[in-house]
Amino acid sequence: MTLTEQMTELARQAKAAAHALTRLTTEQKNRCLRAMADAIEQRAAEVQRQNALDLEAGEKAGLSKAMLDRLRLTDARIAGMAKGLREVADLPDPVGRVLDERTRPNGLRLRKVATPIGVIVIIYESRPNVTADAAGLCFKSGNATILRGGKEAIHSNRVIAETLVSAANAAVPEFPDHAIQLVPVTDRAAIPALLALTDYVDLCMPRGGEGLIRAVTECSKVPVIKHYKGICSVYVDREADPEMAVKVSVNSKCQRPGVCNAIETLYVDRAVADRLLPELAEALWKEGVELRADAEAHQRLAPLANGRPLKPATEEDWNTEYLDLILNVRLVDGVGEAIEKINRHGSHHSDAIVTANEQTARRFLNEVDSAAVYWNASTRFTDGGEFGMGAEIGISTDKIGARGPMGLEELTSYKWVVTGTGQLR
Amino acid sequence: MTLTEQMTELARQAKAAAHALTRLTTEQKNRCLRAMADAIEQRAAEVQRQNALDLEAGEKAGLSKAMLDRLRLTDARIAGMAKGLREVADLPDPVGRVLDERTRPNGLRLRKVATPIGVIVIIYESRPNVTADAAGLCFKSGNATILRGGKEAIHSNRVIAETLVSAANAAVPEFPDHAIQLVPVTDRAAIPALLALTDYVDLCMPRGGEGLIRAVTECSKVPVIKHYKGICSVYVDREADPEMAVKVSVNSKCQRPGVCNAIETLYVDRAVADRLLPELAEALWKEGVELRADAEAHQRLAPLANGRPLKPATEEDWNTEYLDLILNVRLVDGVGEAIEKINRHGSHHSDAIVTANEQTARRFLNEVDSAAVYWNASTRFTDGGEFGMGAEIGISTDKIGARGPMGLEELTSYKWVVTGTGQLR
Repeated sequence: MTLTEQMTELARQAKAAAHALTRLTTEQKNRCLRAMADAIEQRAAEVQRQNALDLEAGEKAGLSKAMLDRLRLTDARIAGMAKGLREVADLPDPVGRVLDERTRPNGLRLRKVATPIGVIVIIYESRPNVTADAAGLCFKSGNATILRGGKEAIHSNRVIAETLVSAANAAVPEFPDHAIQLVPVTDRAAIPALLALTDYVDLCMPRGGEGLIRAVTECSKVPVIKHYKGICSVYVDREADPEMAVKVSVNSKCQRPGVCNAIETLYVDRAVADRLLPELAEALWKEGVELRADAEAHQRLAPLANGRPLKPATEEDWNTEYLDLILNVRLVDGVGEAIEKINRHGSHHSDAIVTANEQTARRFLNEVDSAAVYWNASTRFTDGGEFGMGAEIGISTDKIGARGPMGLEELTSYKWVVTGTGQLR
Repeated sequence: MTLTEQMTELARQAKAAAHALTRLTTEQKNRCLRAMADAIEQRAAEVQRQNALDLEAGEKAGLSKAMLDRLRLTDARIAGMAKGLREVADLPDPVGRVLDERTRPNGLRLRKVATPIGVIVIIYESRPNVTADAAGLCFKSGNATILRGGKEAIHSNRVIAETLVSAANAAVPEFPDHAIQLVPVTDRAAIPALLALTDYVDLCMPRGGEGLIRAVTECSKVPVIKHYKGICSVYVDREADPEMAVKVSVNSKCQRPGVCNAIETLYVDRAVADRLLPELAEALWKEGVELRADAEAHQRLAPLANGRPLKPATEEDWNTEYLDLILNVRLVDGVGEAIEKINRHGSHHSDAIVTANEQTARRFLNEVDSAAVYWNASTRFTDGGEFGMGAEIGISTDKIGARGPMGLEELTSYKWVVTGTGQLR
């Protein structure tokens, strides 16, 4: 079989499984998910044995310490996978929700009903726990999943996928085996081959670094929802409460700097720079943050630095996701310039304004073109759990299909169900 | 300027206009739309003069009669454009709708609010009236539009676009001129150049034949929502009311055979073929329909044909959109086989079951993977107007972003608007 034939077979089986999934009840799906969780725990030793093979090969191949860490299935990560699957079982079924309902003058009854999307390809990098997390969410939302993890995690991914499928099958015989499939080859050409199959594959979600996402978007003929980088920001307005401005800025940057909804740039209204800039800088320096300032802010802060990290920002810095304790500081002339700069340099992910002026806030919330816009709160809340959605598969930075945190509801499409009594046009 | 530079400039201007559009009120948008409608009527003579240039060039270039007909801006079509724009003005503003609302235990207030998508590229073929229809819908939903019509309609499209922009601008000075732009070159390479600009373009919608849609999907790096062909069907179940089965089948095929929601295949339950097949065939023949039947149906119908059009169906016929008075007839063993065949051969557009059995109907409605599924009604109702949405830009056969008729609401995305009182994580 050529690679294309192999991928076609895989995708065709997934499509058939997607159809079979439409027949499972919510109760059957939940029983499968709980059985999967139990099986992951019961087979933990085997999973870790397979994981050790990947770790060994990774060490030989000279993977970085950070990559090896992401690859490692510790006891806590095994427990995390099982817990995640049980949480998904506990969430409401997103399929079948009636999104809209109307009766037309001719008596036709229309209902817009949430449906599974169909076949979803998930492409990810070194974290093998994504295998269970993504498969669980896609399965609960009625989708067949084709998983394509990094080749460095192939043994781990394989044993996890096999464990999920065999557990589900034992719990509910109607579970279609091909509802969760792993791409069985590590050949890179498998990705474009799979993403050319528009008759079978309904959606692709790449999860990982910018390079991976770009490569997938470039080659895909099927729709892609991108979970892109987070260049987020806080704008401190002239009417900000100073204490809140400091707290929100520090929290948005420092509470967990390595995640996508941590900020990379702090915009400060020039009108209050004199008063607020020193206070903001002191608080950020106290947390060990390196500041990269525009010329004017740099000039104001330099005399205060006393050896604390301060650099002039480069043009490139405005477009950089640091994922680290580094923060750009930039003065702007009010909310208008802040909006313009955020829309230009940000990644349309999460941006906050701190102000006591409702009109200013409304303008920011309306005009900043981001998935989540905040008024007087930390950007760190952009998260499925914090939004009350439960588990999420990622944060979409796209506008088509889903935007922001993608929980179970965002993994569905819809259809129009029309019932009549013989209506003709 | 290279073509890429030219397209980048166009798209950058569209992005800036999209931002400016977020500041227009509903009342301002409606005033623009009504001014556009008036201007189209007032400048009808000039529009038709430009249209005559296209028609003349088209005749010289040997365009088919059907293409010339689509190209021609008759008085009725001019009036239709104006009427369409006024109807869009009368529809509710889809932007700002609150789709979901919740307050979290920490006091954060979340609202999921409908927003414009941003910059939408519309690629279409010979009908110049699409210029006004698409621009009006995209504008009302707050999007900047880049229109790319067929080169055979360039004069007509140009005068229409100019008319819309100058009228809107005169009515509302805040109207951003680049909210409605026409690609100024007919070079085919403009399309891939434009659809590579992921920083500026948010969505592309190709409207036209299969070739156009495939070409756009192949080259686009931005999300595409496809308005694909309609291979629709009616399934007559063993428990169908015979009279309703005949009426729904005839209406679904014959009321307007040239449109996407007319059916191409009639599936008949083998259990009632003896009784219903002759009746169905007679009614269809009476309307002048050519039947293409599978072997068994052909055998049953041949003795009844008496010179009326009947052919054996080929394998290719099951996947063909005739847009004509031709209909496949195929026997199936009940609803299960009907579902399987519709999902395999149909285009996931509109499919109907005629049955008196609710359980059978529920299975069909659940398992047929189409944008619109009907129980005891004609497939011809899949239409924005019939669904009560008002004007539509097309019928999406995709599942991501929008499915089925795309009215104003389907031309929006959403954002999460989060308001707090200094909440930190």
